[in-house]
Amino acid sequence: MENGKSSGDKSSLKPIRCKAAVCRKAGEPLVMEEILVAPPQPFEVRIRIICTALCHSDITFWKLQVPPACFPRILGHEAIGVVESVGENVTEVVVGDTVLPTFMADCGDCVDCKSPKSNLCSRLPFKVSPWMPRYENSSRFTDLNGNTLFHFLNVSSFSEYTVLDVAHVVKIDSSIPPSRACLLSCGVSTGVGAAWKTAQVEQGSTVVIFGLGSIGLAVAEGARLCGASRIIGVDINPTKFEVGQKFGITEFVNSMTCENKRLSEVINEMTGGGADYCFECVGSSSLVQEAYACCRKGWGKTITLGVDKPGSEICLNSSDVLHNGKTLIGSLFGGLKAKSHIPLLLKRYMSKELELDKFVTHEMKFEDINDAFQLLLDGRCIRCVLWMG
Amino acid sequence: MENGKSSGDKSSLKPIRCKAAVCRKAGEPLVMEEILVAPPQPFEVRIRIICTALCHSDITFWKLQVPPACFPRILGHEAIGVVESVGENVTEVVVGDTVLPTFMADCGDCVDCKSPKSNLCSRLPFKVSPWMPRYENSSRFTDLNGNTLFHFLNVSSFSEYTVLDVAHVVKIDSSIPPSRACLLSCGVSTGVGAAWKTAQVEQGSTVVIFGLGSIGLAVAEGARLCGASRIIGVDINPTKFEVGQKFGITEFVNSMTCENKRLSEVINEMTGGGADYCFECVGSSSLVQEAYACCRKGWGKTITLGVDKPGSEICLNSSDVLHNGKTLIGSLFGGLKAKSHIPLLLKRYMSKELELDKFVTHEMKFEDINDAFQLLLDGRCIRCVLWMG
Repeated sequence: MENGKSSGDKSSLKPIRCKAAVCRKAGEPLVMEEILVAPPQPFEVRIRIICTALCHSDITFWKLQVPPACFPRILGHEAIGVVESVGENVTEVVVGDTVLPTFMADCGDCVDCKSPKSNLCSRLPFKVSPWMPRYENSSRFTDLNGNTLFHFLNVSSFSEYTVLDVAHVVKIDSSIPPSRACLLSCGVSTGVGAAWKTAQVEQGSTVVIFGLGSIGLAVAEGARLCGASRIIGVDINPTKFEVGQKFGITEFVNSMTCENKRLSEVINEMTGGGADYCFECVGSSSLVQEAYACCRKGWGKTITLGVDKPGSEICLNSSDVLHNGKTLIGSLFGGLKAKSHIPLLLKRYMSKELELDKFVTHEMKFEDINDAFQLLLDGRCIRCVLWMG
Repeated sequence: MENGKSSGDKSSLKPIRCKAAVCRKAGEPLVMEEILVAPPQPFEVRIRIICTALCHSDITFWKLQVPPACFPRILGHEAIGVVESVGENVTEVVVGDTVLPTFMADCGDCVDCKSPKSNLCSRLPFKVSPWMPRYENSSRFTDLNGNTLFHFLNVSSFSEYTVLDVAHVVKIDSSIPPSRACLLSCGVSTGVGAAWKTAQVEQGSTVVIFGLGSIGLAVAEGARLCGASRIIGVDINPTKFEVGQKFGITEFVNSMTCENKRLSEVINEMTGGGADYCFECVGSSSLVQEAYACCRKGWGKTITLGVDKPGSEICLNSSDVLHNGKTLIGSLFGGLKAKSHIPLLLKRYMSKELELDKFVTHEMKFEDINDAFQLLLDGRCIRCVLWMG
């Protein structure tokens, strides 16, 4: 249902002039500049960003010099906003609603969105495109010289205003603290969902997490929620081990100091034959292979969450696959359906089961976004939340 | 509980002299000769074989010239027998019981056997060994010159008598026709179980089977039992297509005549984006990769059943794994626990749900075993059952 404010006069909607942090060149500081944000087209909403967080994918696409990188672009994809205006055919949200953008679509109508088994919307399939998802070669951003600015991951939250397809927003309760809710746009949902939905971690089980960045820590939080009794963290940086303890990690392995043993030997010894679940959160195909070797025969699951270089291959010994009954599965956005599962996670946050506060290590003003980039680059923060206005 | 006949005087058990078809040299006709079968040791049973079938693994190990092949050996692992005597500590079966040998152990006591999630017994793990499973370097067979004859897959059923570990026998109802029941020792269980237990094929789903040998046909039978609505068979031999129809195969693809299309393109077109389940029954890692590409994003499962060359690798694009939410899993013995699941399958045979008759294309006398080998080598039979004495 549309309210009076958003219906009837959509043709009269005007571009909004506002501040955005534009990535004009790979690896160079973002430029805080005035831009124009066009009105939403049919099935789109324009939102005012309340706060946005930084995720490692923002850094990856900021650094990347080759396609799918493209410039000038507005990065950012973890955020909370308020609907400013809606285009034609938008009935799901109205002006003033608090919404969480998600890089993954949930159209609600396609065979995948209707199936309980998939979170990979077929109508608006995931791709790293510089455009609005529903309209080819179409951007809602221009700079003051009239040049197109590219979108990023269907969100582009490093701007005071942005436009999203309605399949990419989840209406949420406005009473939830925005700096916590925004984490569920990407990273925390990806990790928690991988444990909860993709792996379906069972009570009392043993979990190994390869890579204790924010995704790995979110897997730990998810595994803790699911009742795992042992959560073993693997990283090459021993300072991650202290941090990990706050996230339920019970044991640590420094993969740089395995003393001539393969990592899988160490894990197999620690677990008496392998872990029930292994999560690869680094993005290294060879580490996925090692994770697979760390899995318990008979029922072990290896879940990949990390993004490796294009073209990289995960190679498994065919006899090992056949004889050991292990499962390999990938998890995009933690296997979550944005519109049905994020509200459930937010409920668990409000009932103090899901702990989000510990993910937010820094809060800053949007203007200081380049300092926030530096924090993440230096590995000094898990999540830094940037407040608008 | 032991009966009077089998208890008390185990030390008085004598070797049995009987006929066996001995494989003395790779690829040469089996030699029908008299051998000695030693009494069962603790935890072992000696059985009189009623009938045995030929499985393709018998052919593989008959042809193989390098380790793990070894000669002279008594092949055969699909059979039905009657317990002739039992060793110490055997309480599960008594003399006179009808039993089905299985190459996979089910000790009932280890963590795997106790878990509903695994069929990979830890106490007697699967390996292609020439010995009795519980005792190192120990055979129960000698020829009349006193030379050791090797065991095969824990069964060695090409002999009138054989000795098995009690973890490798399943007690069954003696009223079930032996020539049908014996099929569940290996091939049919492997295929039906892969659909039923490993993949858990759902009602109304679409299944693709790569390779329409006896294992592939058994997968079709399992998928049919599970209520799959489309069962697509893929083979290079068009005569397999006629046979397949009897096993519930609804559509056929000749992978030799795909007209410049990749097999996965053809399957993806036929299924509107991929099948729910793909079963690789040939033993080709590159075909597993193709099967994976034929799976539906979001929920598709690829199940490997075929045995490829040692050292061969299944290589999957890491981005494909991450982005498509597909599952890769291996299925050994169809994921079945021998002692609990085979009796269930036999019940479904007796209630005319599971169709076993159609698998038995030939029945012969044990003496004609070399003719039976030739039938299987020529691809002229699905299962040939050989009757003893």
